[in-house]
Amino acid sequence: MGGSCQCRNRIVASLLVAIFLAVAGGFSAFAQEPLPSWNDTAAKSRIVDFVKATVTEGGQGYVSPEDRIAVFDNDGTLWTEQPYYTELAFAFDRVKTLAPQHPEWNSKQPFKGILEGDIKGAAKGGERGIVDLVEATHAGMTTDHFNDIVSNWFATAKHPKTGKLWTEMTYLPMRELLDYLRANGFKTYIVSGGGVEFMRPVTKRLYGIPPEQVVGSTIATEYALNDDVPVLNRLPKIEFVDDGPGKPAGINKFIGRKPIFAAGNSDADYEMLRWVTATKPGFAMIIHHTDGQREYAYDRQSAFGKLDKALDEAENRNWLVVDMKADWKKIFAFEQ
Amino acid sequence: MGGSCQCRNRIVASLLVAIFLAVAGGFSAFAQEPLPSWNDTAAKSRIVDFVKATVTEGGQGYVSPEDRIAVFDNDGTLWTEQPYYTELAFAFDRVKTLAPQHPEWNSKQPFKGILEGDIKGAAKGGERGIVDLVEATHAGMTTDHFNDIVSNWFATAKHPKTGKLWTEMTYLPMRELLDYLRANGFKTYIVSGGGVEFMRPVTKRLYGIPPEQVVGSTIATEYALNDDVPVLNRLPKIEFVDDGPGKPAGINKFIGRKPIFAAGNSDADYEMLRWVTATKPGFAMIIHHTDGQREYAYDRQSAFGKLDKALDEAENRNWLVVDMKADWKKIFAFEQ
Repeated sequence: MGGSCQCRNRIVASLLVAIFLAVAGGFSAFAQEPLPSWNDTAAKSRIVDFVKATVTEGGQGYVSPEDRIAVFDNDGTLWTEQPYYTELAFAFDRVKTLAPQHPEWNSKQPFKGILEGDIKGAAKGGERGIVDLVEATHAGMTTDHFNDIVSNWFATAKHPKTGKLWTEMTYLPMRELLDYLRANGFKTYIVSGGGVEFMRPVTKRLYGIPPEQVVGSTIATEYALNDDVPVLNRLPKIEFVDDGPGKPAGINKFIGRKPIFAAGNSDADYEMLRWVTATKPGFAMIIHHTDGQREYAYDRQSAFGKLDKALDEAENRNWLVVDMKADWKKIFAFEQ
Repeated sequence: MGGSCQCRNRIVASLLVAIFLAVAGGFSAFAQEPLPSWNDTAAKSRIVDFVKATVTEGGQGYVSPEDRIAVFDNDGTLWTEQPYYTELAFAFDRVKTLAPQHPEWNSKQPFKGILEGDIKGAAKGGERGIVDLVEATHAGMTTDHFNDIVSNWFATAKHPKTGKLWTEMTYLPMRELLDYLRANGFKTYIVSGGGVEFMRPVTKRLYGIPPEQVVGSTIATEYALNDDVPVLNRLPKIEFVDDGPGKPAGINKFIGRKPIFAAGNSDADYEMLRWVTATKPGFAMIIHHTDGQREYAYDRQSAFGKLDKALDEAENRNWLVVDMKADWKKIFAFEQ
């Protein structure tokens, strides 16, 4: 009887060990402190408090998993947007590649300026110039071909100041934030003014965000048969601009429900932040570029990522302003 | 020693039982035969063979989980489209509700015909009439308000022939197919010519498909402030028609990658089926409405869901044609 009892105890003990190991394995993600590249400032606390509230069943801030939608602007929020947008660097390179087939570009802005390295001259083309540039560099091929062009460009194109690949210019604290939200049941989306098909080839690798969770500006595509093979041709026609007031419209169109978390860094995110925080428990954060040493310091006067109105209203609207210099231990993964 | 050995054996046995129970629990979804409302015909076999191949690691047909995207047309593929589209029934009811505010409708098609019960007269408005109808009944309110209007309509509106709620007019075998695909790691989408915001309020409940996995036609929305509260207003302007050649374009725009499985029932799905099956392992199926007793029998001559060209080419293109009468044990859940 003593042996049998001891044996039962050992069975119980071995089962308890098995259960413990299973539980410990399942929860290992929670064992380490979240957001390791964030300093222990109020910004981090506010984020963690919000996320904890959304997952605390029975609590006032609880949100069911299917409604845990988080949206992130891309340029200046997830990766650098200085000295100009990544997609603009791509467009510049495309202009240089395509120039031999377009002699007329030598006398037409913005192409002339781009080819002569005179960006200020190129900027004189204004909004019409930007439309011309997008249509000249982003259309006139199939979607598959454009995907290849973009993927090849990202494989080698480098940032003009750091000499790092553009794909290395992502913010480590934001990648940690994406991971942290997903570990807590959030579905993470990009909502960017950038072209949706420019971002999709790299978002999974850079941010863990699959193509179907990227919302962006679109140009029209047209179904056609190439030698009887169905393809989609990219037309030189901007279809939807997912920027400013277009961001809530884009979210509504692509996702079909309102996020509870939104991150941006410029006035182009203002309407999105307003819309998301108009209903509870909407949480909004603004990345404020305050670190001229490790990245760039800019806000109200910047040509790219101008942050003015949203910064003025942030405090009253209870939007978290993240001070990159003070709140982030590390900005880029490649930093020492 | 004998006792200790027996004890070890019992520990091993109890662990094996624990593991067995865990495994059995995890795989209980596979314990029952899939697609119970399908007859044991070639159609069912082809679907099951395809799905098994996509999940068999190391096999020739294996597809990684993230690429297991399946798209379904809605009208005539997931729910009935006769004697007219569900959304048209909704539009008719909206016209009747709004008529007192629009005396001009008494002399203008398609409104006149709708109000007088003269659908043939209404149809004389042609394509322009349809656009007018959509814009008159689907715009001029916020997205939240439209969501409420649609939800309320679905709660009570009934099919003119069966007297069942429109939401009961879904095909049970197709709901089983959606479940079966999801149980095998597929992400299921609707890709419909219908309005995306007309479908989203009910797709989760009817099909287990969340709002962000519904692709459809869109009308433009505009961000605005109502008493300083941000809203999206639905404008009387059709933005994108997700039908025919628009379906591959819509998939590319919303999802950003090509599905490996597509189901449709009419020539409006033709380009989608061509595009999906242009690359391996693309699988396509067509629901052929052959059951005039239990549902409706129609194809080449139908005003709604005309199936002609796609039916002609199905065999040569290796598209599975599902014969509703022969292949489905039950069409609607409410059948005896």
